[in-house]
Amino acid sequence: MNDNPDLVGNDRARYCAVRRPAGVRYIEVLDQRALPHAVETQRIATVDAAATAIRDMVVRGAPLIGAVGAYGFALGLDTEAGDDALARIHALLDATRPTAMNLRWALDRVRARVVSLAPAIRADAAWAEADAIVAEDVSINAALGRHGLALLQSIERNRDGPLNVMTHCNAGALATCGFGTATAPIFLAHEQGMAVHVWVSETRPRLQGANLTAWEMAQRDIPHTLIVDSASGLLMRRGEVDVVIVGADRVATNGDVCNKIGTYDKALAAADNGVPFYVALPSPTIDWSARSGEAIAIETRSGREVLDVRGRDASGESRTVAIAGDATPALNFAFDVTPQRLVTGYLTERGVARDAEALHALFRERPSR
Amino acid sequence: MNDNPDLVGNDRARYCAVRRPAGVRYIEVLDQRALPHAVETQRIATVDAAATAIRDMVVRGAPLIGAVGAYGFALGLDTEAGDDALARIHALLDATRPTAMNLRWALDRVRARVVSLAPAIRADAAWAEADAIVAEDVSINAALGRHGLALLQSIERNRDGPLNVMTHCNAGALATCGFGTATAPIFLAHEQGMAVHVWVSETRPRLQGANLTAWEMAQRDIPHTLIVDSASGLLMRRGEVDVVIVGADRVATNGDVCNKIGTYDKALAAADNGVPFYVALPSPTIDWSARSGEAIAIETRSGREVLDVRGRDASGESRTVAIAGDATPALNFAFDVTPQRLVTGYLTERGVARDAEALHALFRERPSR
Repeated sequence: MNDNPDLVGNDRARYCAVRRPAGVRYIEVLDQRALPHAVETQRIATVDAAATAIRDMVVRGAPLIGAVGAYGFALGLDTEAGDDALARIHALLDATRPTAMNLRWALDRVRARVVSLAPAIRADAAWAEADAIVAEDVSINAALGRHGLALLQSIERNRDGPLNVMTHCNAGALATCGFGTATAPIFLAHEQGMAVHVWVSETRPRLQGANLTAWEMAQRDIPHTLIVDSASGLLMRRGEVDVVIVGADRVATNGDVCNKIGTYDKALAAADNGVPFYVALPSPTIDWSARSGEAIAIETRSGREVLDVRGRDASGESRTVAIAGDATPALNFAFDVTPQRLVTGYLTERGVARDAEALHALFRERPSR
Repeated sequence: MNDNPDLVGNDRARYCAVRRPAGVRYIEVLDQRALPHAVETQRIATVDAAATAIRDMVVRGAPLIGAVGAYGFALGLDTEAGDDALARIHALLDATRPTAMNLRWALDRVRARVVSLAPAIRADAAWAEADAIVAEDVSINAALGRHGLALLQSIERNRDGPLNVMTHCNAGALATCGFGTATAPIFLAHEQGMAVHVWVSETRPRLQGANLTAWEMAQRDIPHTLIVDSASGLLMRRGEVDVVIVGADRVATNGDVCNKIGTYDKALAAADNGVPFYVALPSPTIDWSARSGEAIAIETRSGREVLDVRGRDASGESRTVAIAGDATPALNFAFDVTPQRLVTGYLTERGVARDAEALHALFRERPSR
């Protein structure tokens, strides 16, 4: 049963994106919409509550919504566990974020685990499988951190001072069940006394960098500085960035990376300035059915996310303000695709792969269509 | 005397960044801090009011603050016009935005015009010189528009539909005394019936794209779409951008371009995708004393501009919200440098120059140190 026993980083920082207290049949999640201005926990005790939490982005981050989806499945089976219910629960959760790779992967995995069992024991098996998914994600994060730490230690630098790491969006503890993916090496390096400084790219439109990643760094007392997304090129040109590490929402078999909008721009700036550019990549994020980035459909979200900005006003209240006039429409692609040629390496739980071939070699047991 | 007689575009759009009504000794400026939510005009009738308007960014945009600075000089001389006053007024205005190229250029020009005159006639001469600076800027804009229109008409495209132009920040009528620099070809193309669509990059942190450029497009009924700054790479990759045109704050003699932060990232994306990248460049923006972009000091502004976002709340009131927690600092470079190799051409009032040598050839009478 998961009570996140080995979440060293999370325990120290006293927050946890998802948690199943020992012995209970519900989960607790951090309401990420309230961060960084308020830390609010939500108890999720029904499948509908789980679906709503994913849909409304109370939780986000590919590995995390996979885990919450799996728990939602178990919650649903607690109420009704026949074959019809099984199909209905899967469909309900799957529809919450249709393009999220890890959600589908986790739901398929729970279904495969329980489908051949008698309905009476399906729920228990689903809870166990969800716990296993969480435990695996925690250990994937830890492995990413170890390999990533070695990577950070190996980066050659021309000057003294902290190692300057740039990241984009949030691929942190708030996006996973553990230490995060892109952040795992940073957290580990900081814990081991290595001097690191993190450039946090704010990540418009939803500001996951400003709202979440900066908050995570502050929670851990890791030196960090917020920048606008388009300042990354200048910082690299000035030699202020030693390495870029980003997460991924989906990686094609040729190594193309689908990640938060703006990742491609950072990869271009890194290449132009000889800055190593790494993608932190738990293996469930690899889409073995996508030959290239062109095969990945880019999610378009509401233009209101561009037109509106949420923050805290002078009186401490959360408030949304409009930045453009009413006659101005907006387009909002949530992700972009970074071609393999711009990626220095893929940081996985089994080590660093320098190209797509090396990535395949690390995960030979997966079907590579 | 300037009553902006030939501001066809501005007249049609019924707004004007700076205006000296016929026969008076004051100017009217649009308060750009209130846009796009309110259109408010400010009357400036003293040198102190002019200095405050520039310092507080009631007016911004290199050519515009040059013009307002020149009028401020005239306003100061209306009160006192001895040699001491002359020096004091120049220093006061020059200090408002110390890195703004065109401001220094305009102030030096007014001073040179009046310094050898008897104090009693200095003010009249300064008003005339300021009017001349405005008139020249209007005609530079018009010339940029004509050359730029020919450029837009020559761009080869692979598909039907409007010509998709991307711009960054605001190099529009609000940044000048006339038609704008980067926007001049767009406005002219639209007026002549050419189908154009403009991708407006919001331009964090101060959102000049969302607040000003989008508003200008809406005023002229020009189809446009707001995007976050980091969406430009993806749009170019998808073939949704036919040409990029940006303004410039300062251009070195080797062709390096200092412009709003994020310009370099767009130039990289344009180069990676074969999209032509043009810099609209009135000649007073060329820094004949800077050999390269490395010689240009990058202005660092308050981190609060990154941490705060201003907009209109649901009740219609202007409000500022904080996007990060209190433990997060921010760094705010206002400009970046785009190396010459990434620039397809320089759009000047004398035509398009393909490289620095061609730029020098267009302006042979200038000292090229």
